Amino acid sequence: MTNLCVVLVRTRNPLNVGAVARAMSNFGVMELRAVRPYGKAWREAKSAVGAGELLARAKEFADLSEAVADCSLVVGTTAVGNREMKHPLRGLEEGAQLIGKRMKSGRVAVLFGSEKWGLSNEDLSYCHWLMRVPTRVEHRSMNLGQAAAVVMYELGGRGSKGGKGSKGKEKVIDNDSLKSGATLRKQEREEFAEMETVERIGEALLEALRKSGYIAARGEVKAEEKLRRMLRRFSLEVGDAEVLLGMVRKILWKLEQDR
Amino acid sequence: MTNLCVVLVRTRNPLNVGAVARAMSNFGVMELRAVRPYGKAWREAKSAVGAGELLARAKEFADLSEAVADCSLVVGTTAVGNREMKHPLRGLEEGAQLIGKRMKSGRVAVLFGSEKWGLSNEDLSYCHWLMRVPTRVEHRSMNLGQAAAVVMYELGGRGSKGGKGSKGKEKVIDNDSLKSGATLRKQEREEFAEMETVERIGEALLEALRKSGYIAARGEVKAEEKLRRMLRRFSLEVGDAEVLLGMVRKILWKLEQDR
Repeated sequence: MTNLCVVLVRTRNPLNVGAVARAMSNFGVMELRAVRPYGKAWREAKSAVGAGELLARAKEFADLSEAVADCSLVVGTTAVGNREMKHPLRGLEEGAQLIGKRMKSGRVAVLFGSEKWGLSNEDLSYCHWLMRVPTRVEHRSMNLGQAAAVVMYELGGRGSKGGKGSKGKEKVIDNDSLKSGATLRKQEREEFAEMETVERIGEALLEALRKSGYIAARGEVKAEEKLRRMLRRFSLEVGDAEVLLGMVRKILWKLEQDR
Repeated sequence: MTNLCVVLVRTRNPLNVGAVARAMSNFGVMELRAVRPYGKAWREAKSAVGAGELLARAKEFADLSEAVADCSLVVGTTAVGNREMKHPLRGLEEGAQLIGKRMKSGRVAVLFGSEKWGLSNEDLSYCHWLMRVPTRVEHRSMNLGQAAAVVMYELGGRGSKGGKGSKGKEKVIDNDSLKSGATLRKQEREEFAEMETVERIGEALLEALRKSGYIAARGEVKAEEKLRRMLRRFSLEVGDAEVLLGMVRKILWKLEQDR
């Protein structure tokens, strides 16, 4: 579980920050990050009685890109999905299994948006895919603290014995490693690139597209988000990402020479 | 899911009542009952904006016995178990499966205790067994609203498609019925006695034990709780319960004659 972190994006209510931290601790997910938290709420939550070490250690980031820079998989949580960005939408059960596998080779971030608006399109452009708790269509939207509890349960608690503490959890992971030891598919054996590298590719490529006139000044924000999404769909491995970054930078250099 | 009800015992915080109701609605568990709720909290929760139909229809009971009278299985939730009463303690995953089976033949109640004290020994004496969310040993105790969300998810949401709404849930139940149609074991085919009948047996037997001098006046409360527990361990079927009630009543009549 040390490869899993929860990222709260623009959370406003200190009670919700505390509730998310508590559910994380209940199920053994110990790293909390916050992007532009509402300042007062963040301070209140941090100083609340019983907030504990997890909240005391929680880090604050100015933007999402920075908060997920060291992660190789970024998963957004949503009540409804998002048509515009064409993300794959996975149920919590399936999503948790995938996350469990990916945690073996790299750091995974699970994002929760603000209470009122959820994750914005810009936030979503940093996500590889989205995950949904299977609520009823008639009442989809969950309370933030409760959604976090259900997600943490499926990621950390379920399948563990609980009563036996971390022992139980380790056993489950061990079983999984044993099973996959022989049948490991290609994709699982490779290490995926960290978001910092992918983001650099995106920046260079965007600049190149700007310079080449591909992107009109008017539609730039949208283009940037779509590009970011596309790069994450590639699921770039470490080696490939380095190569791609080199290519794009070279092209960009050429474009700047030609100007 | 119409055979499942949630019973809140002496809940104090209106926010928690609202949170439990919300999680129930998210996952399609629609019947809420409350035993001796803290009056102000109950009224506040009921009148809260967006409380919805579920909370408006929620019923209040003066005691737990009354609240579970029409149920044939009563399950207590706990963070820690309870040694004194010697209840079987099941993990949420296993417990939810059993509850799913029992819901086919009778009504099941899932109990949540007060925020501060959980369920008392007296409350527990009405339970057939206890169920625990698998939290870490280092941080066992969950927030009430979050515990309810995780339990409702495991009981109602998980396995369902969610996105397809009630359709998904029905499909799961159908699969289960089909499978068990052929291999139905004895225990699953029988109907279990409702708690009202079991409680009557307990009362008559207690009276008989009192009259016969088996129970000393001093240890009466404890004896009553232990007796209640014992009767619930029997998992009495409808027919057997009627017979047993007749027997005990007859003995009691005799004891009263002899006095």
